Amino acid sequence: MTITWVGLDADDTLWHNESYFVSSYELFAELVAPYLGDVEDPYQTAHDQLIATEIRNVPWFGYGIKGATLSMIECALELSNQKIPASEIYRLVERAKEMMAHPVELLEGVVDALDALAEYRLILITKGDVMDQRRKIEQSTVAERFDAIEILHEKDQATYTAALERHNIDPAQFAMIGNSLKSDVYPVLELGGFGVHVPYETTWALETAEEPTGHPRFALVSTLGEVPAVIERWDQ
Amino acid sequence: MTITWVGLDADDTLWHNESYFVSSYELFAELVAPYLGDVEDPYQTAHDQLIATEIRNVPWFGYGIKGATLSMIECALELSNQKIPASEIYRLVERAKEMMAHPVELLEGVVDALDALAEYRLILITKGDVMDQRRKIEQSTVAERFDAIEILHEKDQATYTAALERHNIDPAQFAMIGNSLKSDVYPVLELGGFGVHVPYETTWALETAEEPTGHPRFALVSTLGEVPAVIERWDQ
Repeated sequence: MTITWVGLDADDTLWHNESYFVSSYELFAELVAPYLGDVEDPYQTAHDQLIATEIRNVPWFGYGIKGATLSMIECALELSNQKIPASEIYRLVERAKEMMAHPVELLEGVVDALDALAEYRLILITKGDVMDQRRKIEQSTVAERFDAIEILHEKDQATYTAALERHNIDPAQFAMIGNSLKSDVYPVLELGGFGVHVPYETTWALETAEEPTGHPRFALVSTLGEVPAVIERWDQ
Repeated sequence: MTITWVGLDADDTLWHNESYFVSSYELFAELVAPYLGDVEDPYQTAHDQLIATEIRNVPWFGYGIKGATLSMIECALELSNQKIPASEIYRLVERAKEMMAHPVELLEGVVDALDALAEYRLILITKGDVMDQRRKIEQSTVAERFDAIEILHEKDQATYTAALERHNIDPAQFAMIGNSLKSDVYPVLELGGFGVHVPYETTWALETAEEPTGHPRFALVSTLGEVPAVIERWDQ
């Protein structure tokens, strides 16, 4: 066996996530654009400033709905010179709860793909706010298909190393599947493992990266349904 | 050996925490009280309403600075009928960052108490926002004295059971030390372990409970410095 364990990311790999953030970003841009004066594209400027605020705040707020909402509130107050009315800030707070209450929607083909991977040991490896992630995992109906679950505060070489050690997983026999090259693919390739990139319809600005070229332990596929064949091919 | 592992809570057991929240609650009450009309004690009403909001929001927001701040913003908007100005909301966001940036201040006698407990295996068991907790643990200078660290999303029988299993700790040989009866003492007593209550100067409303009476595996002490003698006495 070349591959014994398969890791799967959750947000935007097993279920929709970024699309809800995108619609919150749109609400944010709508609320804030009127305060931006005569810039050329106020929606785009609002969006760009929000991303800049999020990047600045990640070390404090981490990933997840709570941190994104605090960044939105902070950025709305700053861009409007604190002129935005309280009622519009309240819409951002309400929006956070709507996001949290949103039912988990599995991506198409997830159950079939997990069925096809059942001969491997499966580990779900996600990052972000522990509350958010737990709620989604519990709601997802697929948690019981995994032999292990890890919620990490960041997905880099150090956190993967520690997580794989906790489960006695040899990186050389480990394949990680996910929608983020930065969080799901590169750190695992660098540890000697395999990586499969399954891009989601949109990628958060903090997660964009270049595809590896000609890497023997990397594959790019268009849906999760193609993953089992890739793993089988490596696992000769 | 009756006791092989000693667990210690972190916030308000090893270092100050609640006192910073208390001063944020005071800021909140100051900002919100003017909008409360003719209630008898507007400061107390603001505080009580904030606690009610936090209790309602714990399932969504969990514990920690981000969740508390979102609850403050939501409650300020609701109690002011959305009349509170944006500049005052901004003070709450700034306050969150001040709390996060606050250096960790060890409680008096912590280092001596850890020295005196060095013959036992030590595990730090805390709950709350992972980002907050990690930052404080790293800053605390005492992390290296622990054989294990667990950041739980909740501290109840189920989460203690899982954490103790991860480290092969027999609950019957485990003593947990902390400032919260609800989170540090009762769940461990119920699992057959030992519990020591070291009350902090203030207790968050969500953590109040009655002291156990006449329990053979419980002790109430006034400082962490008294803990080693209690553990020695049990460990005959």
